[in-house]
Amino acid sequence: MKTNLESTLNNIQNALDNSDIDLAQQLLNTLHPADQADAISDRTLQEQSKMLPHLTADNAAAVLEHLDEDEAANIASELPLDILANLLDKMEPDEAADILLDLYEDKASQVLKQMSSSEIILPLLKHRDDTAGGRMTTQIPTLYPEMTTSHCITYLRKSKPDKEHHYYLYVIDQNNTLLGILGLRELITNPPNTQIKDIMNNDFISASVDDDQEKCARLISHYNLMSLPIVNDQTQLLGVITYDDIVEVIEDEATEDIYALSNLSADSDLDVFSPVKMMISKRLPWLYVNLFGAFISAYVISKFEPTIAKIAFLAIFQSIVAGLGGNAGTQSLAIMVRALALKQLTFRQVWKALGRELVIGSLNGLAVGISCAILVYFWRGNTALGLIIGIATFGNLLIAGLLGTIIPLTLKYFRQDPALASSALVTGITDIIGFALFLSLATLYISYL
Amino acid sequence: MKTNLESTLNNIQNALDNSDIDLAQQLLNTLHPADQADAISDRTLQEQSKMLPHLTADNAAAVLEHLDEDEAANIASELPLDILANLLDKMEPDEAADILLDLYEDKASQVLKQMSSSEIILPLLKHRDDTAGGRMTTQIPTLYPEMTTSHCITYLRKSKPDKEHHYYLYVIDQNNTLLGILGLRELITNPPNTQIKDIMNNDFISASVDDDQEKCARLISHYNLMSLPIVNDQTQLLGVITYDDIVEVIEDEATEDIYALSNLSADSDLDVFSPVKMMISKRLPWLYVNLFGAFISAYVISKFEPTIAKIAFLAIFQSIVAGLGGNAGTQSLAIMVRALALKQLTFRQVWKALGRELVIGSLNGLAVGISCAILVYFWRGNTALGLIIGIATFGNLLIAGLLGTIIPLTLKYFRQDPALASSALVTGITDIIGFALFLSLATLYISYL
Repeated sequence: MKTNLESTLNNIQNALDNSDIDLAQQLLNTLHPADQADAISDRTLQEQSKMLPHLTADNAAAVLEHLDEDEAANIASELPLDILANLLDKMEPDEAADILLDLYEDKASQVLKQMSSSEIILPLLKHRDDTAGGRMTTQIPTLYPEMTTSHCITYLRKSKPDKEHHYYLYVIDQNNTLLGILGLRELITNPPNTQIKDIMNNDFISASVDDDQEKCARLISHYNLMSLPIVNDQTQLLGVITYDDIVEVIEDEATEDIYALSNLSADSDLDVFSPVKMMISKRLPWLYVNLFGAFISAYVISKFEPTIAKIAFLAIFQSIVAGLGGNAGTQSLAIMVRALALKQLTFRQVWKALGRELVIGSLNGLAVGISCAILVYFWRGNTALGLIIGIATFGNLLIAGLLGTIIPLTLKYFRQDPALASSALVTGITDIIGFALFLSLATLYISYL
Repeated sequence: MKTNLESTLNNIQNALDNSDIDLAQQLLNTLHPADQADAISDRTLQEQSKMLPHLTADNAAAVLEHLDEDEAANIASELPLDILANLLDKMEPDEAADILLDLYEDKASQVLKQMSSSEIILPLLKHRDDTAGGRMTTQIPTLYPEMTTSHCITYLRKSKPDKEHHYYLYVIDQNNTLLGILGLRELITNPPNTQIKDIMNNDFISASVDDDQEKCARLISHYNLMSLPIVNDQTQLLGVITYDDIVEVIEDEATEDIYALSNLSADSDLDVFSPVKMMISKRLPWLYVNLFGAFISAYVISKFEPTIAKIAFLAIFQSIVAGLGGNAGTQSLAIMVRALALKQLTFRQVWKALGRELVIGSLNGLAVGISCAILVYFWRGNTALGLIIGIATFGNLLIAGLLGTIIPLTLKYFRQDPALASSALVTGITDIIGFALFLSLATLYISYL
């Protein structure tokens, strides 16, 4: 199956390119919904909304679940009301809610009226997309503490099986308060007449409905959970986040960190085929931030114009010091941003981290500074120039390491995203310091150059 | 429980700082193993190896599982043989194998002799850490196709429950060939006399034992799997990778991409408290790569020394064009690296991606180029200089967008890590082009400046 996937995908694309919808349809139906989603995800909206109703309703619902949220919403908005209502009914409630939230309001309310699961979906629409409430599913297998294991197994056999694959069952009281959780394995492996309350785990970890999705991901990853129950202030069970939602969150958060460190807006919806307008809106503002920084650097250099007018070759070397500082700063920045994202350090360890950067910055600074000095000496045969570049590089690398550590920590301290703007700040400041250091030293010792 | 965690962790640290091991021990025992691991993870090796034997063996084993692999191996090497053997026996086999692989060979073989689970562990030691074989667990619940559901439930009750939480059961023949998989839910919800072969899923997705861990993570995330069976060439079942191993892989891969894009060696073992020697070995080589790039740029600038000698203020502006190009290139690089990591594009979409970059690069180039020209005009009142900077910026941004797309794709095409060296290449080339473009234009139109 796996080896033919690529060729089937290619054949589907070719069929669609030749407008042979029937063949495409036929091939598409042989695939897993995740691959069906891939196959149609880069076609035009028109083709997509034409293909979808020809899949089985279960498959079409699964395809919508596997597509990007904004793409799914775009297709949904093109589908006839009755077809869309049917598909949304078949989707996992949390995913259906995400699509409804992305539709125009009047279309969403019209669809909701036609849906049989609107009662389940409506409460989900209250929660923000990136909170526990927005990520949770509400179709949860629940039990009461007095039931026996055999009673539970019979009960589960009778109750309509739900779509999400729950490994845990949730034990609640009449008031819907969460009392404990029970793995299917314990249910099966304990004697038939065991009471649930005797085998359930009541030292479980839960999250609040308003918690940030990143916190939920961190809990699931830290404690190796398969799912995380979501409760309100009265510890009433509202929903469950499962591990598969969390894989998405972890990938999204990593994408956002990568973007933030690369002078992009930290928006995980941005990808290589995002609309050009969105692309520019996420890139251009940061280019302007960099432009601003570049002009400050230029202003600093302009203060040394008389020196450069006398010794033009300084212009050749001024960028080396600045550039190396930026690179060293980016290095410690990346390590610190990752440490904060993965909760690898606490604020009480800040001094330790800074002390280490001081050592590493000095050693790297010495190594690179000496290399610079030697290279410049051999190129231009100018000892003073070599010394000045070496010293300026050493100083800038030392400062860069500290900045790369302090700036994200400061942002975090003020409850901002540590990655956001860090990169622009670190490289902006190391540029300024690099130019200032090198050109000041050159001005000071101009008689030796 | 959650709200007190931070204060308990602080109290443990204070107790340890005051060498009050008893109190620390007592507090530690109230915590979840994941938090116990956090509490001891930044202590000295001496303290760690002293604390661990005082925990219950189950907890100590769980702590080793939750620690970083290299940290766990360090502690393990300090523990007495008998204690270590007992702890490794209680760990998940794949995690125990990872620690054994990190120990000195003679210590590892001595420990293995004392372990009761050495038979399970030995085959795992053959596989590389970052392959499916290195990540899989071999303790798998298996069934035969002719069993009935009630037979299976009785069988599972009798067999010793294993440590990993398996949601799926694996159906094999006498030859250990994997025939199908069955969720615990299907086992429970189907009538008691149903045969397994009638309800098992035989259209399952599996991976080969030599597959890269990243491929396994991609399969699990793409198909929303809870676990992935690992087979050999004869489709015999060798092990299973569960979702929690994959969360780790996804986080590691994201860390490596972030590092590679930030001029660091792509090694997820590197973190904020890695040994100074390791820190320098992962940073310094890339600083030298950048140094090399910086000297090429300097050489390019040196070709224009006569121009700069005549018009010193060119040195003020030369870095603006180069810097903006680097930033724009980093932007498209980040988007492309992420797209490749998350499999958001295929090679047949390369031209589409490049076409889009051409449009986006032109539009951003126009916006930033015009802004540059205006700013320079108002600052220096020099129309020709403004025009030259504007045109050079436009050109460099256009080229930067294309480079940021082509370089990672090329690396990928040659089966290299697309993030590796991309950043140094993109900024290196945009620097050179930026300086060359600006200074050539200035030399050409020197009479207007």
